[in-house]
Amino acid sequence: MPKRFSTETYTQGILAGDRVVLSRAITLVESRLPSDQELAQEVINSVLPYAGHSVRIGITGVPGVGKSTFIEAFGSYIIKEQHKKLAVLAIDPSSQRSGGSILGDKTRMKSLSVNPQAFVRPSPAGKSLGGVTRSTREAIILCEAAGFDTIIVETVGVGQSETAVHAMVDFFLLLMLAGAGDELQGIKRGIMEMADAIAITKADGTNLSKARAARAEYLHALHLYPLAASGWAPQVSTCSAVEHIGLDSIWQTITAYLELTQENNYFEQKRRNQNMQWLYAAIQQGLEERFYSNQQVKEQLQNVADQVKEGHTSAFKAATELLKLV
Amino acid sequence: MPKRFSTETYTQGILAGDRVVLSRAITLVESRLPSDQELAQEVINSVLPYAGHSVRIGITGVPGVGKSTFIEAFGSYIIKEQHKKLAVLAIDPSSQRSGGSILGDKTRMKSLSVNPQAFVRPSPAGKSLGGVTRSTREAIILCEAAGFDTIIVETVGVGQSETAVHAMVDFFLLLMLAGAGDELQGIKRGIMEMADAIAITKADGTNLSKARAARAEYLHALHLYPLAASGWAPQVSTCSAVEHIGLDSIWQTITAYLELTQENNYFEQKRRNQNMQWLYAAIQQGLEERFYSNQQVKEQLQNVADQVKEGHTSAFKAATELLKLV
Repeated sequence: MPKRFSTETYTQGILAGDRVVLSRAITLVESRLPSDQELAQEVINSVLPYAGHSVRIGITGVPGVGKSTFIEAFGSYIIKEQHKKLAVLAIDPSSQRSGGSILGDKTRMKSLSVNPQAFVRPSPAGKSLGGVTRSTREAIILCEAAGFDTIIVETVGVGQSETAVHAMVDFFLLLMLAGAGDELQGIKRGIMEMADAIAITKADGTNLSKARAARAEYLHALHLYPLAASGWAPQVSTCSAVEHIGLDSIWQTITAYLELTQENNYFEQKRRNQNMQWLYAAIQQGLEERFYSNQQVKEQLQNVADQVKEGHTSAFKAATELLKLV
Repeated sequence: MPKRFSTETYTQGILAGDRVVLSRAITLVESRLPSDQELAQEVINSVLPYAGHSVRIGITGVPGVGKSTFIEAFGSYIIKEQHKKLAVLAIDPSSQRSGGSILGDKTRMKSLSVNPQAFVRPSPAGKSLGGVTRSTREAIILCEAAGFDTIIVETVGVGQSETAVHAMVDFFLLLMLAGAGDELQGIKRGIMEMADAIAITKADGTNLSKARAARAEYLHALHLYPLAASGWAPQVSTCSAVEHIGLDSIWQTITAYLELTQENNYFEQKRRNQNMQWLYAAIQQGLEERFYSNQQVKEQLQNVADQVKEGHTSAFKAATELLKLV
C-alpha cells in the first residue's frame, strides 16, 4: 500500500465516505512536508465544492468539566435521535506540555469511536497551535465532503485555542461546572463572551440544585453583555451526561440559533468572514514559515535576538536587517 | 529649517533633552516613508544605550473613567512630590472611527502640557494599531534618552490596545469607576487580569462609600486569580484627582512593585521578554508590509479574496498562490 494516494483517489474515497481514506487525508493535511502540503491543497480544493453543508459546533470547558463524557452522550444523542452523521475533531494546545489530556486517554469516547455514524479524530500532539488549527480547519472540510453533517470541534478551555476554534465554528458551546466561580474554573474571562450557549454539566443527584442556581447566575451575567451581532441571546442550560438529561434542550438551542442566523443571513456572513480570516492567517503563516526556514535567517536569528534581548539593538533595526536576508 | 535633521543632530538634541528635537524625532518614527523609517532606525539605535532608565507605566480605563484628569493630577504629583521628569504617550486605536477621543480634546492635560518637567505626546489618528504601538515603543526609547525617567503610556480601555500596551510597560494600572459592574463599564474581562493595580477614580463626595465598597470587591476578585509570575499581588486603591487624594498611595504601590520585581529579577526578565516580543512583532509586520505592498499581490488579492470568501477556493491554496508572487 503506497504511503500517499493520488489526488483523485483521495477525492473519490472522501466523497464515497471511505473512512480509511478520510483518515489518511487528514494525516496528509497534518503533515508538514512541502510535498504533502501541496498534495493536501489539491485534495482540499477538489472536495471543497462538496463541503460546507454541516453545522460546526465548538465545545470547550476546563479539564474536569466532563467534556469527553458530554461529547459521548451528546454525540450519541445527535446520531440516534437526530439521525446525524457526526465528526469530532479535537484541538489540544496543551498536549505538548501536559502529555496530552485529549490524546493521552485512549479510552475517551469509547462508544462514539466505534459508532459507524461517527468519526472521532484527535489532533496530533506536539504541533504549534497555528499548525493544529490550520489542519483542523482543513479536517472540517474533508469531513463535510465525506458526508458528516455535524462537526464538533473540541478544545481545552485554557485560553489559547478558544479564539481559534471560535473562528472556525458556527456555534460555540461552553461547558461549565456548577458551584465554582468562573475564576476558580480557570476559564479565561473572555471565553464566556464568545459563548452562544453555556451548558452546566453534571447536573444530577445532589448537584442538581447547585446547577440550577448556577444557571440563573450565568444567564444573568450573559445578559449584561451587549447583544451579539447575530441577534442571538446566549442560552444557559443544565445537563447530565450520565443520566442523559438536557441533551435534547441543548440540541434545540443549536437548532434555534441556526434558524435565527440563517433567516437573518448572519450564518452565511459569518462563514464568509471566517474564510477571509482564514486567508489572512494563512498568508501570515506562509510568510513566517518561509522566513524562519531561510538558512541565513536561521544562522543569524539567535545572535540578533540576543542583541535585541540585551537592549543592544532595537527590534526594528534588527528585524530590518533580518528581512534583508530573504 | 530642514524638514529632517541628520542622525547626529537628532541624537545630540535628544540626549541634550531638547524638546523640539525630541518631538521631531517622534514625528520621524511615526512616518511611514521608507527613507524616514531608515533614518528613524539610525536615531533609535544611536540613542538606545542611553534609554531604558525609566519606569514605564501603562494606564487604561474606559472613556468616562476620568483618565485625563487622573493623569493630570497624578503626573503633577509625580513631578512635584517625587521630582520626576514625566513623558505621557497616548495610544488611541478608536480615534479613526470616533474622531479621536484622546486627540480630539486639545485642552486635555492643560497644566501638564505646559509643565517644563513633562512632555505630552498623543499618537496620531488614522494609523493602524500595529503602526501606533510600534511608534509608541520607539517614542518610549526616545523619551528615555531625552532624560524622562517616568513614562506613562495611556490607552482607551476598549480591548484593542491594552495587550499591546501591557507588552511595553513595567506596570499596568487600570482605572475603574465605583458603582458599575465591570461588564457595564465595557472593560474587556481579560484586561482586569493584566492589572498590577486598580485605582477607583472619583472617590470623593457622595461617591466615597461606593468607591470603598468597590475597592473591597475588586480586591476580592483579584485575589481569586493565581499569583502572577512577578510574585506581586495586585493592589486596589481609591483616589480623587480633583481632591488630590490617594495619588501618593498609588505611587507607593508602584514603588513597592518596582522594589519587589527588581529584587527578584522579574523586572529585568520582563523587559528582555518584551524586547523579544517586539522583535518577532517587527518581523511579522515587516513581512506583511512587504507582501501587501507588492504590486502583483495588490492586483490579485481582491479577486483571490472573493474566491475564498465564496468558498470557491481554500484559504491555503489561495495563500500559496499569492505567496508565489513575492
